[in-house]
Amino acid sequence: MSKHKELVIGMFGFGVVGEGLYRVLQQTPSLKASIKKVCIKHPGKKRNAPAELFTTDKDELLNDKEINVIVEVIDDSKAAFEIVKTALKNKKEAVSSSKKMIAENLPELLELQLKTGRSFLYESSACASIPVIRNLEEYYDNDLLHSIRAIVNGSTNFILTKIFEENLSFKEALLLAQQLGFAESDPTLDVEGFDAVNKWTLLLNHAYGIVTSPDKILFNGIQTINKSDAVVARARGQQIKLVAQAKKLIGGGVGAFVLPQFVTNDSPLAFVKNEYNGCVIESGFADQQFFYGKGAGSFPTASAVLSDISALRYGYKYEYKKLYHHEPHKLNDDIYLKVFVSFNDLADIPKDDFEWIEQWHAQEDRKYLSGVIHLEKLKKSNWWKENGTSLILEPDPIIENIEERKLKKKSLELAGLV
Amino acid sequence: MSKHKELVIGMFGFGVVGEGLYRVLQQTPSLKASIKKVCIKHPGKKRNAPAELFTTDKDELLNDKEINVIVEVIDDSKAAFEIVKTALKNKKEAVSSSKKMIAENLPELLELQLKTGRSFLYESSACASIPVIRNLEEYYDNDLLHSIRAIVNGSTNFILTKIFEENLSFKEALLLAQQLGFAESDPTLDVEGFDAVNKWTLLLNHAYGIVTSPDKILFNGIQTINKSDAVVARARGQQIKLVAQAKKLIGGGVGAFVLPQFVTNDSPLAFVKNEYNGCVIESGFADQQFFYGKGAGSFPTASAVLSDISALRYGYKYEYKKLYHHEPHKLNDDIYLKVFVSFNDLADIPKDDFEWIEQWHAQEDRKYLSGVIHLEKLKKSNWWKENGTSLILEPDPIIENIEERKLKKKSLELAGLV
Repeated sequence: MSKHKELVIGMFGFGVVGEGLYRVLQQTPSLKASIKKVCIKHPGKKRNAPAELFTTDKDELLNDKEINVIVEVIDDSKAAFEIVKTALKNKKEAVSSSKKMIAENLPELLELQLKTGRSFLYESSACASIPVIRNLEEYYDNDLLHSIRAIVNGSTNFILTKIFEENLSFKEALLLAQQLGFAESDPTLDVEGFDAVNKWTLLLNHAYGIVTSPDKILFNGIQTINKSDAVVARARGQQIKLVAQAKKLIGGGVGAFVLPQFVTNDSPLAFVKNEYNGCVIESGFADQQFFYGKGAGSFPTASAVLSDISALRYGYKYEYKKLYHHEPHKLNDDIYLKVFVSFNDLADIPKDDFEWIEQWHAQEDRKYLSGVIHLEKLKKSNWWKENGTSLILEPDPIIENIEERKLKKKSLELAGLV
Repeated sequence: MSKHKELVIGMFGFGVVGEGLYRVLQQTPSLKASIKKVCIKHPGKKRNAPAELFTTDKDELLNDKEINVIVEVIDDSKAAFEIVKTALKNKKEAVSSSKKMIAENLPELLELQLKTGRSFLYESSACASIPVIRNLEEYYDNDLLHSIRAIVNGSTNFILTKIFEENLSFKEALLLAQQLGFAESDPTLDVEGFDAVNKWTLLLNHAYGIVTSPDKILFNGIQTINKSDAVVARARGQQIKLVAQAKKLIGGGVGAFVLPQFVTNDSPLAFVKNEYNGCVIESGFADQQFFYGKGAGSFPTASAVLSDISALRYGYKYEYKKLYHHEPHKLNDDIYLKVFVSFNDLADIPKDDFEWIEQWHAQEDRKYLSGVIHLEKLKKSNWWKENGTSLILEPDPIIENIEERKLKKKSLELAGLV
């Protein structure tokens, strides 16, 4: 069989992921990958590894000719970008787990890979242990990939599960998540959807060849979801999940967003509980597929980093097939969404923004409505994240044939049937 | 980016899969793969393609220097083996969906790939649309792969679902499966587990580097399962599935079998309903992962064949990493299994074969017991498939520390606690 490259690794970061990786590489000599040097920030900290392994000078790694792979598992996206850039320019392969860094610098990172011809892998940066990037890259021809829906953030899914199954309030559930280590002490990045939209930016590229940035995608987190929303969901036989979604549109382009969404109990996404992640792919031939696994945590992350390192031995690189070898898709924001909105005060709802409102429940303690609104109208406003207002997408939320729907509605109204 | 090979395909078979593939390839010119010639058995049949595409002479494909890929989607495993062998020897790449052929000729096919250096891909032969072969091949270092459990046969899963959810008898459910096209008119291959064990033979290779054959693996189908077994499962909050399982043993080697098994309702395998397939992988770092999708049918199969063709453009070949680059594992049959057995007549049960029997329910209409038995004892006997006797594994059925368990049991008995 073919010969494999001996990998000499320079690693940035020795936190839980970094140390886990170090241990595993020691225990699997068959991988033929060894860590030569680790660059750390705080030399004073006690580490479970020989002192001579460590340095605080990044150039000791980046300029070492013997080191052919740079792995970065640090928590600073600016520094991570510099490290990866320099590594590629210095003709080293690079492995990263920094979703934020990659999402925010995608065009430059793509160009650097083209220019240097080096491999840059980041399987751990989306859904951690689930090999979703590699599968999107290798499978599902652009033309055949109808849609992809995913739960890509474990913290928010843990919180939603607890609200649902143990009837906790959002605050109680968040506290529990923090106590159990499933949410950061500053949970904003997770809870308000930033982490999810970063991951979605990457995945849109591998799914559809879309080159975009997190600020161009409509998103929210779960900070507005409350117990009364869960009551509605339960009554409908549904659950609420933070769903990242993308769908190829009949009219061209791809509709994409990251928003809380009702999912029916028989949907694979309803199966995804607690800190797990899941991804449902619908394609022309394969029909519905579902990938499920741990999306965060030191071990699942280390597992994905390890798989990247292992792939480098075989000279693997992302081909960005959907971008370079197919007709890449573009985001299309010209879509209408079926939404559920719960609120305290009717005055907070800009009724004119809606195409139509199907249901009003204004008598309940917690008022709510169902209606249809253009995606751009949500993008340009904030009312739906403010004043205790909570917006949740309906299952299968995208309406493509709006004119037809309007006509049908109108004729039903004229006939006195609604 | 790198240049890709232009693929000129010779295809054997033009049934539902073959014709589906032909249509898709016509519609996706970006794939740069075209079918030059199709070899068929019955030239008289009307086909939805130009007559000049077809031939009945296999050499027209196998000896055509311009054809660089042979795809076979026929239903005759002997002929399929000859086709694949000749293709590889004639320096063509080969794609096949014949699980039976591959399972029965694995050693020779491995050797042929080594000798010819050609790529032989068969993602469609196990779990069809779920990319399980490629994922096992690329991920989960041998040392880290604790276990793999899967539902690999859609027909039997459909039947079990109907027995369970609609309270049908085995015969009624089988008839329904046949009417809906989820089971063959001769269902023996599916129902009695032959199809599943063929797939398991392949997957054991990509998971653990095990080279074996279907006749060396303990297996059964679901032909013995009846409604009263379903009643027991429901009362326990469990379901019955035909589970293919493999587990790395503490004592060395891998325990593997394909048998009906109780699965708890919170197990991912319980989520797999009707004709779907699913695969649960447990590994050291990634923890539990779950892949789910359609495991049979013309479109899902064509989808997997298509992914193989697409991979050939990039020169992909299975590296058989677990076999060639790691220490390959061996099957180890020296394990004890926790089993449930339902039966009509106590005289049919060889009580002495059991290590111990934990529960007897001899008063019910349908009698049953729970006990522990050595795998070899099942392999060497047939009582558990005969006389209306039905054997179902308990969840987590492998007992590795049998001496310890025996000792504990003994001391509990001596203390009068059992």
